Amino acid sequence: MDAAAFAVLYAQVQQFYARQMQLFDAGDAPRWAQTFTADAVFDVPTLPAPVTGRAGLAASLTAAAGAASRCGVRLRHVVSMLDVAARGDGLVDVRCYALVYATRVGGAPRVHRVCVCEDVLVAAPGGGLLVVRRRVRRDDLAAG
Amino acid sequence: MDAAAFAVLYAQVQQFYARQMQLFDAGDAPRWAQTFTADAVFDVPTLPAPVTGRAGLAASLTAAAGAASRCGVRLRHVVSMLDVAARGDGLVDVRCYALVYATRVGGAPRVHRVCVCEDVLVAAPGGGLLVVRRRVRRDDLAAG
Amino acid sequence: MDAAAFAVLYAQVQQFYARQMQLFDAGDAPRWAQTFTADAVFDVPTLPAPVTGRAGLAASLTAAAGAASRCGVRLRHVVSMLDVAARGDGLVDVRCYALVYATRVGGAPRVHRVCVCEDVLVAAPGGGLLVVRRRVRRDDLAAG
Repeated sequence: MDAAAFAVLYAQVQQFYARQMQLFDAGDAPRWAQTFTADAVFDVPTLPAPVTGRAGLAASLTAAAGAASRCGVRLRHVVSMLDVAARGDGLVDVRCYALVYATRVGGAPRVHRVCVCEDVLVAAPGGGLLVVRRRVRRDDLAAG
Repeated sequence: MDAAAFAVLYAQVQQFYARQMQLFDAGDAPRWAQTFTADAVFDVPTLPAPVTGRAGLAASLTAAAGAASRCGVRLRHVVSMLDVAARGDGLVDVRCYALVYATRVGGAPRVHRVCVCEDVLVAAPGGGLLVVRRRVRRDDLAAG
Repeated sequence: MDAAAFAVLYAQVQQFYARQMQLFDAGDAPRWAQTFTADAVFDVPTLPAPVTGRAGLAASLTAAAGAASRCGVRLRHVVSMLDVAARGDGLVDVRCYALVYATRVGGAPRVHRVCVCEDVLVAAPGGGLLVVRRRVRRDDLAAG
């Protein structure tokens, strides 16, 4: 991939995460779930086991958003340091940092989580990208 | 807008915010005010009412920079998760997160604010971008 | 430099920092040192004097990684607000914010450092970029 094509991909990846994280933080479960492929695997330490498929993904966000709301906490997910590599097979590997900030109304914000996120992305049929597989590891948990 | 044109815009938007936030944190009121259109509306929770126009913008930064300096605090504004959409009319909508970090000499840094920033940008006559309208909401204040 | 060439450069710079910071946080001293030119100058407040050359750079990372490991702390370096300017001579000036997050296993994450990083980059012979000179200043130390 030449430098110009890489720049196009890099912007697309950044825009994808910006929208996906904002949908997550807004608790928009149906639209967030649509940013994954139908058979995507979502492996995060918050869940007892990996989730597969959009219905399960949407349910996990609805549960998480409800819990945050009951606690009076607003969460913001910020993805950074995107190391992006296009594979030959049309898939895109991304390794990045995912930080979560938590704020209560009337309270001081804090850094809630520092995570490493490893994604495999694929071009969506109608343009844009979809997550095929996501693995997240938290810095505050022992390596696993 | 095709993917190549979007990549050009996305880089331009990122560079715009990088420079604008650094001007703000440096307290460079005249040059920061020039990153807005002459009739820009700046609506942030720190100010009692929206500010319109560059003289008012510059005055608001001079006041904020003076207050931070008297408190011995250095502020850094970091914009992330840029969701960028070009409208048909030449304007660009940006919705992003704006985090503010505060550090005292000899002290530990902290996350001071977590905000959502909604901007409308326009191409500047001499190249680059300008803010037409900015609305910022803080996560620690009740929704308004 | 026109807007399209700038977008290519901007993506390249972002990818460079993503990989370089991840190599640093992984403690991969040999590969991290290779992201600098052979005669690069690395001037950071953590070190008593500027370091020149890859052997010294690698040794400084090995020492830092060992110290963090003994303390049970995982560090993540996040670079943001990249103000990128190509000079006429083929060098690239970057001024950005560098934030460091620290997390202990079983503990809450915290913002460890807020810094301003000023780099001069150059195109690497085999593609990509290298750091020619880096100067980092911490917000918690008096201006120097």
